[in-house]
Amino acid sequence: MEDIQSSVDSRGIAIQHVGVRDIHLPFQIRTKEGDFQQVLARICFTVSLPQEYKGTHMSRFMEILNQWSAQPVAESEMEAILDEALARLSVASANIEIRFKYFIKKYAPVSGKVSFLDLDCCFYGSKEKGRNFVFELGVEVPSTSLCPCSKSISRYGAHNQRGVMRARLRLREGVECIYIEDLAALMEKQASSPLYPLLKREDEKYVTERAYENPKFVEDMLRDLVIAFRRMPGLEWFSVSCENYESIHNHNAYASHEECVQ
Amino acid sequence: MEDIQSSVDSRGIAIQHVGVRDIHLPFQIRTKEGDFQQVLARICFTVSLPQEYKGTHMSRFMEILNQWSAQPVAESEMEAILDEALARLSVASANIEIRFKYFIKKYAPVSGKVSFLDLDCCFYGSKEKGRNFVFELGVEVPSTSLCPCSKSISRYGAHNQRGVMRARLRLREGVECIYIEDLAALMEKQASSPLYPLLKREDEKYVTERAYENPKFVEDMLRDLVIAFRRMPGLEWFSVSCENYESIHNHNAYASHEECVQ
Amino acid sequence: MEDIQSSVDSRGIAIQHVGVRDIHLPFQIRTKEGDFQQVLARICFTVSLPQEYKGTHMSRFMEILNQWSAQPVAESEMEAILDEALARLSVASANIEIRFKYFIKKYAPVSGKVSFLDLDCCFYGSKEKGRNFVFELGVEVPSTSLCPCSKSISRYGAHNQRGVMRARLRLREGVECIYIEDLAALMEKQASSPLYPLLKREDEKYVTERAYENPKFVEDMLRDLVIAFRRMPGLEWFSVSCENYESIHNHNAYASHEECVQ
Amino acid sequence: MEDIQSSVDSRGIAIQHVGVRDIHLPFQIRTKEGDFQQVLARICFTVSLPQEYKGTHMSRFMEILNQWSAQPVAESEMEAILDEALARLSVASANIEIRFKYFIKKYAPVSGKVSFLDLDCCFYGSKEKGRNFVFELGVEVPSTSLCPCSKSISRYGAHNQRGVMRARLRLREGVECIYIEDLAALMEKQASSPLYPLLKREDEKYVTERAYENPKFVEDMLRDLVIAFRRMPGLEWFSVSCENYESIHNHNAYASHEECVQ
Repeated sequence: MEDIQSSVDSRGIAIQHVGVRDIHLPFQIRTKEGDFQQVLARICFTVSLPQEYKGTHMSRFMEILNQWSAQPVAESEMEAILDEALARLSVASANIEIRFKYFIKKYAPVSGKVSFLDLDCCFYGSKEKGRNFVFELGVEVPSTSLCPCSKSISRYGAHNQRGVMRARLRLREGVECIYIEDLAALMEKQASSPLYPLLKREDEKYVTERAYENPKFVEDMLRDLVIAFRRMPGLEWFSVSCENYESIHNHNAYASHEECVQ
Repeated sequence: MEDIQSSVDSRGIAIQHVGVRDIHLPFQIRTKEGDFQQVLARICFTVSLPQEYKGTHMSRFMEILNQWSAQPVAESEMEAILDEALARLSVASANIEIRFKYFIKKYAPVSGKVSFLDLDCCFYGSKEKGRNFVFELGVEVPSTSLCPCSKSISRYGAHNQRGVMRARLRLREGVECIYIEDLAALMEKQASSPLYPLLKREDEKYVTERAYENPKFVEDMLRDLVIAFRRMPGLEWFSVSCENYESIHNHNAYASHEECVQ
Repeated sequence: MEDIQSSVDSRGIAIQHVGVRDIHLPFQIRTKEGDFQQVLARICFTVSLPQEYKGTHMSRFMEILNQWSAQPVAESEMEAILDEALARLSVASANIEIRFKYFIKKYAPVSGKVSFLDLDCCFYGSKEKGRNFVFELGVEVPSTSLCPCSKSISRYGAHNQRGVMRARLRLREGVECIYIEDLAALMEKQASSPLYPLLKREDEKYVTERAYENPKFVEDMLRDLVIAFRRMPGLEWFSVSCENYESIHNHNAYASHEECVQ
Repeated sequence: MEDIQSSVDSRGIAIQHVGVRDIHLPFQIRTKEGDFQQVLARICFTVSLPQEYKGTHMSRFMEILNQWSAQPVAESEMEAILDEALARLSVASANIEIRFKYFIKKYAPVSGKVSFLDLDCCFYGSKEKGRNFVFELGVEVPSTSLCPCSKSISRYGAHNQRGVMRARLRLREGVECIYIEDLAALMEKQASSPLYPLLKREDEKYVTERAYENPKFVEDMLRDLVIAFRRMPGLEWFSVSCENYESIHNHNAYASHEECVQ
């Protein structure tokens, strides 16, 4: 049976990225405790294509993913996935994005009641033959913000709202990756208050008062995240954004920033 | 050229709904002022299919929609669209849903500054041969809710958030349809505070204090909407829901209700 | 600390549904093989609210869900979840929807290669005090459709496309629930061809030819689904729809139907 | 009333982007014919924030947008919007993204029937004080792809599907912007066949045969787009991607590429 993909292409154009997108698969993510959490992953997996080939072999991407879906994955396994793609598809570079909801345990601040908060996370990996593996970790942390202007000018109350803080981090070579649990804990400290799936009345009093005592503009949260990331050891680059679903508008307040860390 | 769609089907199954979905087209919606507002419509347009035909003629749906896209549409034009479908496709019933963002003018409560708030709206129409045309109007109004429990138990502040109130109304035969502008105005009165795209500082103070003075659970907003709709003259049936994007959780508080009005 | 929710409401309006929405939690779904599959669930969980109470107690919904999240769930456990809600919230009715992606094993038709196809599924449960538990199963099966008209009028080729067949079933009391695996297998037989995440060249040849030999309008797929469901023993009611993402248009062909089964 | 936003911030962090996001407003887009098309815009509008200020003034973004919403906008008006932001907010840089569905007229290839195809488009503008205005145009063109492998190995037929080709272009300074109409026409030539909202039977035969005669992998479409953009006069940079919603899988084939043009 003819292998059209392997036939020669004469256009002289090497393609940077080609592969599969919007694959859904269960994946096992290594946790801080050393075991793993099963997640529902949404995957984009691509390789470069040399100019001489007409096409890549899409079914091999699926074969690689099916295998790795069954094993706990963290930074080093991400590299192994890409190494396998480089070898099996005979190409010079490979990229993968694995997006998933990851659950962290939250203890309500007064009652101590346990619940599980879902965070949108992403593992990004890229590898070029003969170069170092690049890994980036993305985390989105939902949070509460309370407006300092509204608090200051109003006789009582202050508008507050749900928002989301997003970060994407790249560590220096050889630095061990930060865990999602630790990154989320660091980030939610920069909000007016963390969120909790389960709050009893005494907890609701606590988070209401905490947010009121701790008003923050979207700019404040962003700046405090920047400070936190500048201080984080081993970071090479980060990008961060905050988006607040304003309770007094039908649009969002937004701030973003990225920098290489010296 | 063979007309496969018109060939005979022997399975003996009349289909309730068949047609086209996720059409995007500009449409002209009649406004309260008597002129029209151009909107971006997303349309689902179906007819019944008698058991003896293999298929419907999809291109005719597009021809009908293209024509009507250029003319101001309200309740009576919705009926004309369906009548055209009944005639051109020789069927016994037809349905259409036209979803669109509709902008209403908002005046900031103190400064009077003008801005335009987007509401997700829907016109639903259905017609069976020999029966009355049925029209329903759907409107989603974004709003602020402030939690009575949080206010009551906390020394200061109260969590509040953006939410959305959704309503769908069916009027008795012969009753003139309510305008989106009037329906939205009625609905936003049931929230802790309306939303505005543009607020200056004096307005922000006003809406912050107004929401604090007017705490409402999702249940309160729903009940007040139910009362408002029971009092509305000419209503045959309504459904209503409220969904609050809780600022202290990563999930929503939700309430819904529907009833036929005596 | 004041319990505002339990305070008396004088508006005289009993609310049909109030609760929590867009909860994300891992859930364990019972499989055909008797073990379970962990899924990422998106949940809407509501109860009725008697007219005399101002509000429901939202944190109890989360407490119930957290407990059940750790245990394999199928039809009978759905009833137990609702019974717990009826008891703990002292109400007359409760509803729950649990949406999740469920993976079924697919064998490529020639090579036999194994892969995992994601289906969007839903468990719906509702219970009123003193009445039978009602359970409905919803499944969405992606599939290929190939247009009979295009095949018939063209010298070669025929447009085909991905589509989705959706079904929701309610079984008679006492009838054992059908498994997702069996329902999906029944449904994909009604398409021009099933889909597979992983196909080698010999498989691609097979599915291409199979679809070409088996052209179906959206109306054909719908009718064949209706026939299949009418023949299914124990069914009380079903709704079904087909939506094809037409490869020659930027909109979809759509058909839907529902009926009570005698 | 206190102006908290203007108070001094001592953290020493200048923010790259702060502003408003997910604004919906009607906008007027200049067309090739010289008049304008009203669109529904979704907008993200940000400025930089000097380190010495605590916050920006969000309401001014809305005031600027409200004004420009009423006037035909193309590249030069995008610069004027940003200049206004630089001046009114006293900042060094400003960015805006305006996303909208834009309709182009399509003539069915045989019958000549007219219909309107919706394209997802984006205007990106950025301006730094004392530097040139940068404008980028983004367009997404839905299209048909037919698989060369499937055609080659199968006795008859070939799987084909809807897909989307996305491009984003930056022109050299002083070069006049390409129109959406022309860009879309150039792009859809690189697919197996263009899409049309309205096709009569003779047209359906034409597009079916055209796609079959013109099989293209996602890699082929990408390469032909790259060639087309390399030849386009005045281009400084482009990025391009193709995504095919494979009719035989539940995931997509994907290719992307970007380059600076010499």
